Amino acid sequence: MRGAILHAPRDIRVEERDDPKIEKPTDAVIRLAATCVCGSDLWPYRGIEPVNGPAPMGHEYAGVVEEIGSGVHTIKPGQFVVGSFFASDNTCEICQAGYQSRCVHAELIGAIGTQADFARIPLADGTLVTTPGMPDADLIPSLLTASDVLGTGWFAAVAAEAGPGKTVAVVGDGAVGLLAVLAARHLGAERIIAMSRHEPRQKLALDFGATALVAERGDEGVARIKDHTNGLGAHSVIEAVGTQESMMQAIGATRPGGHVGYVGVAHDVALPGDELFFSAVHLHGGPAPVRRFLPELIELICNRAIDPGKVFDLTLPLDQAAEGYRAMDERRAIKTLLRP
Amino acid sequence: MRGAILHAPRDIRVEERDDPKIEKPTDAVIRLAATCVCGSDLWPYRGIEPVNGPAPMGHEYAGVVEEIGSGVHTIKPGQFVVGSFFASDNTCEICQAGYQSRCVHAELIGAIGTQADFARIPLADGTLVTTPGMPDADLIPSLLTASDVLGTGWFAAVAAEAGPGKTVAVVGDGAVGLLAVLAARHLGAERIIAMSRHEPRQKLALDFGATALVAERGDEGVARIKDHTNGLGAHSVIEAVGTQESMMQAIGATRPGGHVGYVGVAHDVALPGDELFFSAVHLHGGPAPVRRFLPELIELICNRAIDPGKVFDLTLPLDQAAEGYRAMDERRAIKTLLRP
Repeated sequence: MRGAILHAPRDIRVEERDDPKIEKPTDAVIRLAATCVCGSDLWPYRGIEPVNGPAPMGHEYAGVVEEIGSGVHTIKPGQFVVGSFFASDNTCEICQAGYQSRCVHAELIGAIGTQADFARIPLADGTLVTTPGMPDADLIPSLLTASDVLGTGWFAAVAAEAGPGKTVAVVGDGAVGLLAVLAARHLGAERIIAMSRHEPRQKLALDFGATALVAERGDEGVARIKDHTNGLGAHSVIEAVGTQESMMQAIGATRPGGHVGYVGVAHDVALPGDELFFSAVHLHGGPAPVRRFLPELIELICNRAIDPGKVFDLTLPLDQAAEGYRAMDERRAIKTLLRP
Repeated sequence: MRGAILHAPRDIRVEERDDPKIEKPTDAVIRLAATCVCGSDLWPYRGIEPVNGPAPMGHEYAGVVEEIGSGVHTIKPGQFVVGSFFASDNTCEICQAGYQSRCVHAELIGAIGTQADFARIPLADGTLVTTPGMPDADLIPSLLTASDVLGTGWFAAVAAEAGPGKTVAVVGDGAVGLLAVLAARHLGAERIIAMSRHEPRQKLALDFGATALVAERGDEGVARIKDHTNGLGAHSVIEAVGTQESMMQAIGATRPGGHVGYVGVAHDVALPGDELFFSAVHLHGGPAPVRRFLPELIELICNRAIDPGKVFDLTLPLDQAAEGYRAMDERRAIKTLLRP
């Protein structure tokens, strides 16, 4: 089969890889209907995370079950499925508490690489969620977002306790931040302030339900959020970047007792204890337990209640993965969908 | 009147100070029935926080209202009152959300100094809570704890979401940590593991409701908490120290999706973003909004449902404040009560 391989920073190639096989009885192999490039794929692509030898890329996926192991009981070949970027048993105490990304048996799908024709998914019964029947082709991009970017934005909004009566600010106008806007809207937030300075992203944020925009960043951005909130700060702030500046911007923009939901993968972040202490905010985040939200998200998408697939502003054949990465790296594209 | 003044590290003297007066219509002046030394008083006492000139000390207080300003309407002279270490209006949006320590009009009582015969309390209507009638003398130490140390331990337990079915670990065996054990017990926690290596403190922790003790610290302490919890970590961890080691110990001892309630005033703490991210814990804390809990705590104390005053293992006349500080500094005393 074909698969995208990162050889060195900015050197991504679609090459022939071995077809995946059932390795454990709990595995399934799926044929990808669609896959995509994640903001977190750009960390190694840009050389900010080390690239250790040729690495298969991709951890977002939706497709049709091709084959199952002898220990798989709830998933059948021919079904259309979506799964999280972490495989999980969905039965351990941590999974049952809703933290499947930290399942005691968690496995990173990123190590497998779903920017490919096929992918082996471990712990298939726990990881994969079926759609009701075969979805219409136009729903596939939205279903694909549920695998990570929508699920992560959703978790951020839930972690920030976005909801009725709340003013929500969103730091980060990447695909996760934009879909966190959509999540906050769906969760009933009263006001949603998207922090973005890029016109196409501002437009999509408004489309997804933002009620105001703030273009400033850092301390100035915090001051603008306070202007919008009687000087108090937002009730809920979503952090979807993962830098020191964005984290401090999120904490600073939150009122005392408010909630920060953070899902940007932290890179060189150190939170000063005294500032955090006196901020009196709630801080919650981490690798999103997407599996928790998948049944609800699939239902919302299949009922056409939400349309998160709009976040893909570039669709390419898998063979052109390199251009898909380049477009995102240069911020010409918000998010690239790849069709095997 | 007499008052304790810190002149330089380890140089605390009880001296003649001006009697406090009503300065604003919203002030009250109280005659202290009892006051005490806080763990946080030891930071400047030890020179870890700078001492800027002679500084009046003390922020914990309980006593009888002596005089009120013309704008005070709910508090009357002659009433016995307890208040938080932050004055608050108790009416602003932040107060109403339960974060009175970050009231938009918050004032630090520490700047006034309650290790004295009298103290001026700003925003008296919002800050002070009356007891039902004049309390029995033996209740006064417990009522005094409600002013900070109990209220802070209580907030930590609430922030850590201690409750039925939960295993709670407490990092720190100072008075706040010990009273957090009492709070967790009262909130219905199933198991409470006190992390302490000091025998008298271990004994008091067990007295207050701890069900197990862990003497180890740091990574070893984390490993012992995991031994107690099927390798998962505690559901709720209370941090009541405020150092880098204690914060990382608390985060490390918490299971994914669990809650850390932290109330140790952070000194030279920087939380590594990546460790925090992958821990997937909830983090909440800061200066405790003691005012939120005062009515309930006063009721529990006056009904003799809890006996937090046991945390005072040294009682001295105000004149001997210096010995009270020394005993705590040398860990000969857990907490010193001073009688004016």
